[in-house]
Amino acid sequence: MFVKTDETKVLRDPIHGYIYVQYEVIWRCINSRWMQRLRRIRQLGGAFMVYHAADHTRFQHSLGCYEVVRRMVTEVPDLEKALSEKEKVTVMLAALLHDVGHGPYSHTFESVSPISHEEYTCRIIEQDPELRGILDSTEPGLARDVADVIRHKSENPILPQLLSSQLDADRMDYLLRDAYFTGTKYGEFDMERILRVMHVRGDRVVVKESGVYAVENYIMARYHMYWQVYYHPVARSYETLVRIFFLRLQDLAAAGQLVETIPEFQPVARQQVMDLDTYFRLDEYACMYGFANLRHCPDPFWLTWPEGSATGISLTTKRTHLRMSNGSGAS
Amino acid sequence: MFVKTDETKVLRDPIHGYIYVQYEVIWRCINSRWMQRLRRIRQLGGAFMVYHAADHTRFQHSLGCYEVVRRMVTEVPDLEKALSEKEKVTVMLAALLHDVGHGPYSHTFESVSPISHEEYTCRIIEQDPELRGILDSTEPGLARDVADVIRHKSENPILPQLLSSQLDADRMDYLLRDAYFTGTKYGEFDMERILRVMHVRGDRVVVKESGVYAVENYIMARYHMYWQVYYHPVARSYETLVRIFFLRLQDLAAAGQLVETIPEFQPVARQQVMDLDTYFRLDEYACMYGFANLRHCPDPFWLTWPEGSATGISLTTKRTHLRMSNGSGAS
Amino acid sequence: MFVKTDETKVLRDPIHGYIYVQYEVIWRCINSRWMQRLRRIRQLGGAFMVYHAADHTRFQHSLGCYEVVRRMVTEVPDLEKALSEKEKVTVMLAALLHDVGHGPYSHTFESVSPISHEEYTCRIIEQDPELRGILDSTEPGLARDVADVIRHKSENPILPQLLSSQLDADRMDYLLRDAYFTGTKYGEFDMERILRVMHVRGDRVVVKESGVYAVENYIMARYHMYWQVYYHPVARSYETLVRIFFLRLQDLAAAGQLVETIPEFQPVARQQVMDLDTYFRLDEYACMYGFANLRHCPDPFWLTWPEGSATGISLTTKRTHLRMSNGSGAS
Amino acid sequence: MFVKTDETKVLRDPIHGYIYVQYEVIWRCINSRWMQRLRRIRQLGGAFMVYHAADHTRFQHSLGCYEVVRRMVTEVPDLEKALSEKEKVTVMLAALLHDVGHGPYSHTFESVSPISHEEYTCRIIEQDPELRGILDSTEPGLARDVADVIRHKSENPILPQLLSSQLDADRMDYLLRDAYFTGTKYGEFDMERILRVMHVRGDRVVVKESGVYAVENYIMARYHMYWQVYYHPVARSYETLVRIFFLRLQDLAAAGQLVETIPEFQPVARQQVMDLDTYFRLDEYACMYGFANLRHCPDPFWLTWPEGSATGISLTTKRTHLRMSNGSGAS
Repeated sequence: MFVKTDETKVLRDPIHGYIYVQYEVIWRCINSRWMQRLRRIRQLGGAFMVYHAADHTRFQHSLGCYEVVRRMVTEVPDLEKALSEKEKVTVMLAALLHDVGHGPYSHTFESVSPISHEEYTCRIIEQDPELRGILDSTEPGLARDVADVIRHKSENPILPQLLSSQLDADRMDYLLRDAYFTGTKYGEFDMERILRVMHVRGDRVVVKESGVYAVENYIMARYHMYWQVYYHPVARSYETLVRIFFLRLQDLAAAGQLVETIPEFQPVARQQVMDLDTYFRLDEYACMYGFANLRHCPDPFWLTWPEGSATGISLTTKRTHLRMSNGSGAS
Repeated sequence: MFVKTDETKVLRDPIHGYIYVQYEVIWRCINSRWMQRLRRIRQLGGAFMVYHAADHTRFQHSLGCYEVVRRMVTEVPDLEKALSEKEKVTVMLAALLHDVGHGPYSHTFESVSPISHEEYTCRIIEQDPELRGILDSTEPGLARDVADVIRHKSENPILPQLLSSQLDADRMDYLLRDAYFTGTKYGEFDMERILRVMHVRGDRVVVKESGVYAVENYIMARYHMYWQVYYHPVARSYETLVRIFFLRLQDLAAAGQLVETIPEFQPVARQQVMDLDTYFRLDEYACMYGFANLRHCPDPFWLTWPEGSATGISLTTKRTHLRMSNGSGAS
Repeated sequence: MFVKTDETKVLRDPIHGYIYVQYEVIWRCINSRWMQRLRRIRQLGGAFMVYHAADHTRFQHSLGCYEVVRRMVTEVPDLEKALSEKEKVTVMLAALLHDVGHGPYSHTFESVSPISHEEYTCRIIEQDPELRGILDSTEPGLARDVADVIRHKSENPILPQLLSSQLDADRMDYLLRDAYFTGTKYGEFDMERILRVMHVRGDRVVVKESGVYAVENYIMARYHMYWQVYYHPVARSYETLVRIFFLRLQDLAAAGQLVETIPEFQPVARQQVMDLDTYFRLDEYACMYGFANLRHCPDPFWLTWPEGSATGISLTTKRTHLRMSNGSGAS
Repeated sequence: MFVKTDETKVLRDPIHGYIYVQYEVIWRCINSRWMQRLRRIRQLGGAFMVYHAADHTRFQHSLGCYEVVRRMVTEVPDLEKALSEKEKVTVMLAALLHDVGHGPYSHTFESVSPISHEEYTCRIIEQDPELRGILDSTEPGLARDVADVIRHKSENPILPQLLSSQLDADRMDYLLRDAYFTGTKYGEFDMERILRVMHVRGDRVVVKESGVYAVENYIMARYHMYWQVYYHPVARSYETLVRIFFLRLQDLAAAGQLVETIPEFQPVARQQVMDLDTYFRLDEYACMYGFANLRHCPDPFWLTWPEGSATGISLTTKRTHLRMSNGSGAS
């Protein structure tokens, strides 16, 4: 039984106008500590070093992704009819929670972690007492059903397609959102029209032929965002630096020279799968504080940096990083 | 001698389109560590708890404020003529650096600090080796001239008016920016028109009578932003909680029970004016990490919280805060 | 019985994104000749002479007004519950058709006409064979019910309030639309929020106290649009000139000197209530063609114009008008 | 000698914010009767029948095109340096006046006219007493220099490229403007960035390699606007109907059966090059009035229309047109 909230809750959002919440279980998940932790993880890794306004977090993207799925299952007639209330709530929850396992700097951290962020996401949904409690007390087995959407193992193959395919709620929200917060126009496309041309045929989500321009437009938006924002050399350099920092901690640990810094770094240095309590605390705020403390570290790595090293990152860039600078230099 | 950059540098900005930098000294200040530190201080204290997209920082606002002043001194004919190149560069620098002394959570921190953020700002400009070096090597005495604009003690009384008066670059940028990032429309007004109607009469910046509607519009925008965003009860509650945390640290220190937490909290607890090195590190990332660590603190204050206390903040709110949640509940 | 369209029809609209049509009767009225005639009557009289992009017509405003009412009766819970399907369709139709009786240059023409545009509107709805046919074949008496909403004589007093009160669909659409097409920002306000705070108490439409800022914002938008756009001296001068042209035709007719021009001007000159067929043809296209033909008119009025006349309109303005110029001079 | 206006004149524009006029000769041309006539010719032929808000005219597009060229020659450093003041004013004038020879329904009329709209444009600039007077009294030979830019015969080959090439001011304005007024998002691209990457190499206008994404984006915008707006079947059907009306007049004239209608149609029916005075009056207002009068015409063509005729336009569409309806049916 999916209890409705007393009245529809609304959250003001620059991309969607408002985000609407009508189910208690959604509202309680938004207020859970793991969701709130996403307020401390930026959406775009190092892109804020180029696009100085790109401070937006995975928290707001998760809300946005939820809202796109909510509109799909209520406004696309084929979906509205094809899905049961339980399936609708399940896929909305999956959209809301799909990024809950992201570590600091998202994909950068993932590259030095023994398990993927999706794996962490599923563990958190199924094992965190608070989240699992909210879900399973609403409907037994719901936590697993939600995780199954993220794992692409739902009984109904429509559900994962809404969240993750070529034309999905995740990408639709992040392209629009990243365009808005970077201040570029490359990521804009006509989501209203795409929602209007979505249909279901068999177990596939498809679009009407007359919607081909809206879809082309979306694909071009994606292409341009990749080249202008996601692959921007300054953004990638920043992420590479963060990665090298983690790798150095791992090298030192492997050599028995564990650096004294914040405790949350220890399992990273030891390349361990983290227990959820420590992982919870390892947000970007902790990392930044931890990196700043490395200035006291006797390891020569942190003091000198080989000019023209294999990483291609020059001393200037590194110094820049250590003081968190680098200018927000779009050229 | 104010050296120009090789070519005009531009930074993409969602509010102003682009931010233009034409002087070396401006560019070097943007890249200074104190400016970059503002990337770790949010513009809006606790408003992000209500408006979930309001993650924007004082760094981007400072760039925006600079850009508005740059446009004033190049596009308003009276100002373009009345000011020397040195005065123009000085006031642009003052706009860029005017918030550099903000502590974490801005005005919240200020309320538990023995000196104001403006005082810190002037100290940083005049005493930080890097910043002072950039300024005084450009022109001897420039650091002091810049600080004097912020102190409202410039020789030319026009300069401080551009930055801080009833109709100034600081407010113009933050109203537009806060409206954009909260997703409200209350803060929008016609800045282009205001720039067009600005004039200088004697030593005062005035507006042409025909611009009265644009100014009224701006004043209404201000009024609405205060009630809808800056004074929002959830935002203020969050800030009150942060304040109470600092006050409790001070109470315990006064009672000789210094809590073991991050070292940057110690001078706050002792109510000392901080040396600039410690103040530099006390950004919101450090605070958040420090607050999270208080969960180990034996002080009963952090474990229990009197329901219906004098602060008017209920246990729920407090728990919420300790886990960084609270929902982004615009109603 | 209100037949639904096969699928929801949508019209792309810059203000509302899309305009949705779900009832056959609405769709057929949109396609009626009287509605289509509104494509040939500008929304803003003479404002396009100042704001050169303000070419928008009463046709698009009528669609927009309909859309706002449609959203009210489907999205405001109190209205959704309080009104029957018939009442909903009736008030949507009234919104769509409320301006159908406007003459050329709207209020300007009205000032030289023996009856008001509302009176023409009601006659057209109740007497035009096509429109009345569409309405009454859908439900006997519907034409009258629709006209009664416009006459503020509905059985249910809620209906006219949605269309015409202090906070109504008509104004909400035109403020947003006129701001968009003039390129000013003065008319913007948060319609989404106003829809969210609307309630019904007894037989009155009211707003929740927490929505007071959105309403204030709307009132200020109205105020500023009046001063910046609707009362702009150049716009009013243009309208005054058009009025004087009509008055001169009437003076000449009264003196038995009927000017030879387009036949549609004859009943205007004779101050007659026009039959609907002639009124149909008297759109702004016909008027403009008719005015242009007055260049052959021997009446000295059209050839010389007293400088500094009682009208306060100088020779320059008049010449300007005669050649349709005047510059689009916002200053 | 190019006299400046007393102060910069500004016109509010939804696309460019403001349009700036600094030269007397520009201002006087804007106020000329031929420029003002463009207020009575829509920018988009029949597209307003699909996109109900697309009522914008060639007048506003001409101002916008002028503004883009003005920005090019003042803000693009290579152009600012390479061109003399005279060349700058000349190309700004060419941008302002480049569409002045458009007939009603633009390309539709052109298809039944013995000479092109460019040919009319050059004749008007070089022969109209008012326009030629404004230009040649400013600088002898200026009218011809302006027309030469439009004819692609300028001495300096840079000038025509700014107005008409693959990446020109004309297209930049109309893509942005048509997107704004149709309410689609397909035509948006980053003009600011394109202006920033424009350079001059030899006698060619080129773009910096790093600007390739902005240019790609613009090309995609163009592509999408063609398919979604300019080639929309309803828009093209409307234009085809207008064309057939003109052709029928010509057929009847060839058969010696000249239809009695407005005198401005006679030279069209006789396939004559029109004298400028008649051409001046043949705007869309005159045409629409003329078409409406054909309802009295005894020619069976106007009364019956063969279903499934070679034109592919069905009876429904035709009836629709005759009453100026057709619904603004985007599907």
